[in-house]
Amino acid sequence: MRIGIIGAGQLGQMLGLAAQQLGDSCRFIDPSAAPPAASAGTVIQAAFDDSAALAELAGSCDVVTYEFENVPVEALSTLTGRVPVYPPPSALRQAQDRLAEKRLFASLDIPLPAFFTVDSANDLRNAATSIGLPLVVKTRRMGYDGKGQAVLRDLQQVETVSEQLGPSGLIAEQWIEFDYEVSAIGARNIGGEIVTYPLTRNEHVDGILRMSRAPVDDPGLTDRACAYMRRLLEHLEYVGVLALELFVVGDRLLANEFAPRVHNSGHWTIEGTAASQFTNHLLAITNRPLLEPKLHGHAGMLNLIGDIPDAVRQLQRGHLHDYGKAARPGRKLGHITIVAASAAERDRELAEISAFVTGSTSPQGTGT
Amino acid sequence: MRIGIIGAGQLGQMLGLAAQQLGDSCRFIDPSAAPPAASAGTVIQAAFDDSAALAELAGSCDVVTYEFENVPVEALSTLTGRVPVYPPPSALRQAQDRLAEKRLFASLDIPLPAFFTVDSANDLRNAATSIGLPLVVKTRRMGYDGKGQAVLRDLQQVETVSEQLGPSGLIAEQWIEFDYEVSAIGARNIGGEIVTYPLTRNEHVDGILRMSRAPVDDPGLTDRACAYMRRLLEHLEYVGVLALELFVVGDRLLANEFAPRVHNSGHWTIEGTAASQFTNHLLAITNRPLLEPKLHGHAGMLNLIGDIPDAVRQLQRGHLHDYGKAARPGRKLGHITIVAASAAERDRELAEISAFVTGSTSPQGTGT
Repeated sequence: MRIGIIGAGQLGQMLGLAAQQLGDSCRFIDPSAAPPAASAGTVIQAAFDDSAALAELAGSCDVVTYEFENVPVEALSTLTGRVPVYPPPSALRQAQDRLAEKRLFASLDIPLPAFFTVDSANDLRNAATSIGLPLVVKTRRMGYDGKGQAVLRDLQQVETVSEQLGPSGLIAEQWIEFDYEVSAIGARNIGGEIVTYPLTRNEHVDGILRMSRAPVDDPGLTDRACAYMRRLLEHLEYVGVLALELFVVGDRLLANEFAPRVHNSGHWTIEGTAASQFTNHLLAITNRPLLEPKLHGHAGMLNLIGDIPDAVRQLQRGHLHDYGKAARPGRKLGHITIVAASAAERDRELAEISAFVTGSTSPQGTGT
Repeated sequence: MRIGIIGAGQLGQMLGLAAQQLGDSCRFIDPSAAPPAASAGTVIQAAFDDSAALAELAGSCDVVTYEFENVPVEALSTLTGRVPVYPPPSALRQAQDRLAEKRLFASLDIPLPAFFTVDSANDLRNAATSIGLPLVVKTRRMGYDGKGQAVLRDLQQVETVSEQLGPSGLIAEQWIEFDYEVSAIGARNIGGEIVTYPLTRNEHVDGILRMSRAPVDDPGLTDRACAYMRRLLEHLEYVGVLALELFVVGDRLLANEFAPRVHNSGHWTIEGTAASQFTNHLLAITNRPLLEPKLHGHAGMLNLIGDIPDAVRQLQRGHLHDYGKAARPGRKLGHITIVAASAAERDRELAEISAFVTGSTSPQGTGT
């Protein structure tokens, strides 16, 4: 199959590697000169909404997908009718709008933090009264890795936050003192077949994912998260991989957001399971049978941000992925995955590796 | 690292996929217009001994390796001094000459079938007298997949076989009524670190590998095969992956031949272990620490020869690898790997898949 992919970053690269193994070929659109996925297919160097480039993709591929959720939905609209586009653009549209996303969760009985639509400084004050402080204030559109967010701790900050973010087109959410964050990853193919991955626990630093560990040893949480995932996949008539991020508060699960794509918190599935999220995404969008992602052990993944230290390259353990990107502070350059026989062994190994990794959190004492 | 690879077939492709994950890039030399590895790197379209192409490879790579053992050693000689070449050309030279190979086994106390150098029809008669009939007669050089071989069953065939193969530059070997064939796969890096893979049992049809299964449930055999592997790796000051094929006769192991490269019988290591032969080959030749190939279960691999039936593409189980080659009778187009919780389950699944696969053997009743 010929797979068109909008975006040629590391997620595109990992899709491309999975594709080659399946005998599929990939063609990417990306404005960068030498994006990571260039090694895994051909790249049309163009803006994501370049209509000539999109036409070229439509004309030369059997199916088109995307590797990030800020793709202009209008760009995808020019493709539909000419080539199948998965995940469905309607799902992308809802993921791009935090309000639509929250209303979707609510309509599917997926618990979520209280929220309030904000289109003025006054709305923000009303939200504070209604929900209480502190509030997390976010732009409704185009936020990622903690960008487009602010915390309102007291009412005197209303003007500042309004100015910083809007003041309209915002959403205010209840501040959640969560115990930890998890993500559920699932895939659905065109025929409606579904697989779900074990629940993954994530640690963020400055809004950027630093570490993921799976499986979360809590069957009750896992079952509930998978049930929510199924509701989303079926309601959206979804095709491809979907990632749902949730907060864990005591024994409660609250949905935070979903990403209609393969996800950084699922990188561990490459070595940690029998069938990675990338393979299942490709199988799903081409309507081949999905593969059961049987666990190979207790997996942990550390993002390598800003640089890949030589010490990490010389480690005796762990699977290093180097995206081939130029080093730059804050940039995701690679990741390393550990698969161990027990959670304790995994955490010990992650702690050892963390010592070499810039800005990483230690997994010690977090008790997953 | 920039890896130069002579040959861009499916083994090159699998090396290329492993390389991309490690952040390495691959450049291949291959005379074909659209070889399988074209998806996994850039290809210089040229003969394997094209000196301009080899110079280009030497000038643009940090290390050069090869994916098949019929590379002209002279071609590699033009590279040495300009760029490191691994596995060492001296090992390749011995692998290319069945007589040197057998003398090497003998010198390292690795048991092997009786053999006799044949440079005339008369030598062949002497071999028959000395070793007994039937004899397997092979050209000393450039045989693969059962090519360049004949069986001498009675002395009246001496002239025919002499004409067919030589009559000089041959070797006659004792016919071995083996119980089954196995391969040992190991890797050694520049620093001398060694890892070995569990022993793999192989079934051939018409000289071409059809099915591999691992691990062989016989710790005694495995230990001995690994010991032989270590002797070879250390004696040859070997760098990279080496495959050693052996016959099992009762509780005896007899060396058949070795291949100084990644090997078809190790394809199962991609999904069946924590670190494939391809990854360890790359780590070895670039002197990075090797990864322990921890088993994920009981693995089986079926080669897909001549065609890849649609039924195989629609299977609910197994990891299909499609090399992207045009279908042609007798051509290896892909393979499918099963990883199961038990040997019985694996064999049951292989039997089910075999029903769809052209010319495959059934794993039933072979009792590995």
